[in-house]
Amino acid sequence: MPRYAMKIEYNGQPYNGWQRQDGQPTVQGAIEDALRKLQPDFDKIAAAGRTDTGVHGLAQVAHADLTRDWEVFRLNEALNYHLKPHPISILEVAKVSDDWHARFDATERRYWFRLLYRRAPATHDKGLVWQINYPLDVAPMREAAQHLIGQHDFTTFRSSTCQALSPVKTLDELTIEEVAVPYGAEYHFSIRARSFLHNQVRSFVGSLERVGCGSWKPIQMKHALDAGDRAACGPVCPAAGLYLAGVGYAQDPFTGAAPINTGGKR
Amino acid sequence: MPRYAMKIEYNGQPYNGWQRQDGQPTVQGAIEDALRKLQPDFDKIAAAGRTDTGVHGLAQVAHADLTRDWEVFRLNEALNYHLKPHPISILEVAKVSDDWHARFDATERRYWFRLLYRRAPATHDKGLVWQINYPLDVAPMREAAQHLIGQHDFTTFRSSTCQALSPVKTLDELTIEEVAVPYGAEYHFSIRARSFLHNQVRSFVGSLERVGCGSWKPIQMKHALDAGDRAACGPVCPAAGLYLAGVGYAQDPFTGAAPINTGGKR
Repeated sequence: MPRYAMKIEYNGQPYNGWQRQDGQPTVQGAIEDALRKLQPDFDKIAAAGRTDTGVHGLAQVAHADLTRDWEVFRLNEALNYHLKPHPISILEVAKVSDDWHARFDATERRYWFRLLYRRAPATHDKGLVWQINYPLDVAPMREAAQHLIGQHDFTTFRSSTCQALSPVKTLDELTIEEVAVPYGAEYHFSIRARSFLHNQVRSFVGSLERVGCGSWKPIQMKHALDAGDRAACGPVCPAAGLYLAGVGYAQDPFTGAAPINTGGKR
Repeated sequence: MPRYAMKIEYNGQPYNGWQRQDGQPTVQGAIEDALRKLQPDFDKIAAAGRTDTGVHGLAQVAHADLTRDWEVFRLNEALNYHLKPHPISILEVAKVSDDWHARFDATERRYWFRLLYRRAPATHDKGLVWQINYPLDVAPMREAAQHLIGQHDFTTFRSSTCQALSPVKTLDELTIEEVAVPYGAEYHFSIRARSFLHNQVRSFVGSLERVGCGSWKPIQMKHALDAGDRAACGPVCPAAGLYLAGVGYAQDPFTGAAPINTGGKR
């Protein structure tokens, strides 16, 4: 059975998250339904990362085992045809070896977060940003973020329902850019690690926002981390601004287009 | 009765265009409904430009006469509150003189158009771009656009239902930028004139796309213009990529934030 890797973009707004659930609209369910149009006995795909309700994908990666030997361009086009009118798009398909695994072979996950400051409510970007109506100060947020970089016990920034075996993770990057927009500003967070705990990114952004608005001093981020206590976390921020921006592999299965740039506005 | 000018941003997707129609969702109707929450006997607003079904606003301008003397910040906030959950947002409110008119005093309208080339269907930008699945060549499009600049009889690029008294208009700007995006490109058209004929911008973009894909030579744009015949126009392009990007006045009623930049991506 040939195995195919897929790079997937999706708008998370209409879905109860990535993971298939009977009777609920999910991204995984929609893609599996499209695969069953090509192969009625198709079972399931495996993905690099699950995303929660309302979280978006810019370059999620999943794999599927198909009985037929497909030319990758034709498989890509056929899947996008059958995915209509879902806001889910297969950006690239690659044939991979039988033992390649979208989840277990991933060496890095990259997230991107859009936080919009503007008084007037978002219109075209509704559901695609977390909006606040006061400006933030980037310098203290950057200072606070430095305390999170490296290997730590991230119990403070972990959902109580997180199923990871250990709360110890290594955060490789947490950078923040400010982009001027009419009548306000956007703050873009780029966050990178081998793997994440459940709600870790939204716990980071929610706590950093407390620093940016002056409610927390930057050093309080270190105190929160050191506490090793969920109660020490800032508010978990909304899902709407969060994007799974990319997945890294020792050998990237996709060729062609360059990786998604998570540094600027999409 | 004090008169107030409003700068308005909206996502045109859920609306049958700007203009109020009984029993249909329209942008004008939604804003008038919000005004009636503040003043039950409120009648109607006047806008600088009507937009068709599916066309968006970045900085539409309209005015309203209210019986009460409002502090502009409070009026702005109250309108945005009552507009929820519509994807319509009042960016700015200004008090203007009783004889100031959003439509008749406008000296310039600016439109912006987003054309996306990518094979994979748009997800987050669905309904916000016109998507094609082949690349365009910008240089010949720019050459063709030069034939349209200046004062001309634009009968070729005018809807048969256009109600303007004359087909003669002066086009002040038609510039095209190419912006690289993952797996494709966007072409941004910035178009500026004192006023436009119905469907003029979409007729321009639809014809320029024919040049960009190699189907028309640039000089054919001049031939089409000279024909003065609707049948000589290229296909009128879809509404989804079109934005009313700004309205100019001899004296801008709004102060504060800078005008919307129509040159780059929003």
